[in-house]
Amino acid sequence: MAAAAQRLLSASTKIVGVGRNYVAHAKELGNPVPKEPVLFLKPTSSFLHAGVATAAVEVPEPLESLHHEVELAVVISRRARDVPEASAMDFVGGYALALDMTARDLQSVAKSAGLPWTLAKAQDTFTPISAVVPKSAIPNPDDLELWLKVDDELKQKGPTSDMIFKVPFLISYISSIMTLMEGDVILTGTPEGVGPVRIGQKIKAGITGIIEAEFDVQRRNRTFSA
Amino acid sequence: MAAAAQRLLSASTKIVGVGRNYVAHAKELGNPVPKEPVLFLKPTSSFLHAGVATAAVEVPEPLESLHHEVELAVVISRRARDVPEASAMDFVGGYALALDMTARDLQSVAKSAGLPWTLAKAQDTFTPISAVVPKSAIPNPDDLELWLKVDDELKQKGPTSDMIFKVPFLISYISSIMTLMEGDVILTGTPEGVGPVRIGQKIKAGITGIIEAEFDVQRRNRTFSA
Ligand SMILES: [Mg+2]
Ligand SMILES: [Mg+2]
Ligand SMILES: [Mg+2]
Repeated sequence: MAAAAQRLLSASTKIVGVGRNYVAHAKELGNPVPKEPVLFLKPTSSFLHAGVATAAVEVPEPLESLHHEVELAVVISRRARDVPEASAMDFVGGYALALDMTARDLQSVAKSAGLPWTLAKAQDTFTPISAVVPKSAIPNPDDLELWLKVDDELKQKGPTSDMIFKVPFLISYISSIMTLMEGDVILTGTPEGVGPVRIGQKIKAGITGIIEAEFDVQRRNRTFSA
Repeated sequence: MAAAAQRLLSASTKIVGVGRNYVAHAKELGNPVPKEPVLFLKPTSSFLHAGVATAAVEVPEPLESLHHEVELAVVISRRARDVPEASAMDFVGGYALALDMTARDLQSVAKSAGLPWTLAKAQDTFTPISAVVPKSAIPNPDDLELWLKVDDELKQKGPTSDMIFKVPFLISYISSIMTLMEGDVILTGTPEGVGPVRIGQKIKAGITGIIEAEFDVQRRNRTFSA
């Protein structure tokens, strides 16, 4: 079960991020609470898999920090298009703890200019992710607690029951915009408490009682390939 | 060669769009000419392959039209990270003619609100693409002519030499932001002349002397899967 769930991730062709899905987080950034989900895309090249010896989030120059956003990741088990909410959970293969790392300054510049969030969200290592937990281990994704610590200091802690748009709705809604494929990942948004994590610091995050993962933060090393 | 180039597309895990890469197009939409490439992501689920009997661009309700943007697509042959401009062409496996279909009204709303362009750009069938032309058939991607007709009326025609950021620079730049993988596609931007194409109309587009492709435009049909 666990191995099958994990294998899903290697088939992944997209990460769909949901923004402002917790009221308190929308407010802490001064954003309106959305009437429908705010969707953005991250490429699978941004995954950083936990447990790998070199699992470090890389901060590109000239940035000194990135913002952490702890999120429940939903891993899709099979092709989903125009899926009604009532059967949406049949398309879930598992869950993971993920971080939607965000270069907040670049995002602010992009937002003001009406430009995409690509530089702020899509860079390599900007989507740290834990091992995949089989669906059977999480009977109710609406009853979880997410937490995140930077250097052992608690920064984020919130229940997934605070999500404005719940997992079945998100799957149904997203599948009406674009076909979800086997292994695709939905990042369901972050509770309040986002903030900077700096080069040299360590992030620990988890779903209470289910899984946790740890990531270092380092300067991105540009090594030119020929 | 042609078959190998075509196979690359089936491995694709992302489409990187470049916005405002032709001065005349940036100006026609009232946008500033960018100092560095404007990047956005489209999912591979948005591909619409030419030549399939049912190759129709789908216009979702309540929209009545989408904007056509004819573009040169670059298909990446192998993993590319921090690639210098001088060797960037070694990572090209082929080219295609692609359309970056855009729901312009949704994009305008998103731009004003500082939100991602996902609804405007990422929906299924929003990236019609021709067969892949092997790299050997196009010695110089900077010396091509793109054209697009709606119902046999010429709407767009422009030389790729008008690109602000050229193919080798784009590959180098994008690979410094995110790793490009085998089969990934770069949409290099559109010349002036974008405009609406309506349900029932037909799009023909091509790279002069190299390839052409044809797509119908129809109302998107929502069929709920269970
Ligand atoms: Mg993608
Ligand atoms: Mg987030
Ligand atoms: Mg375009």
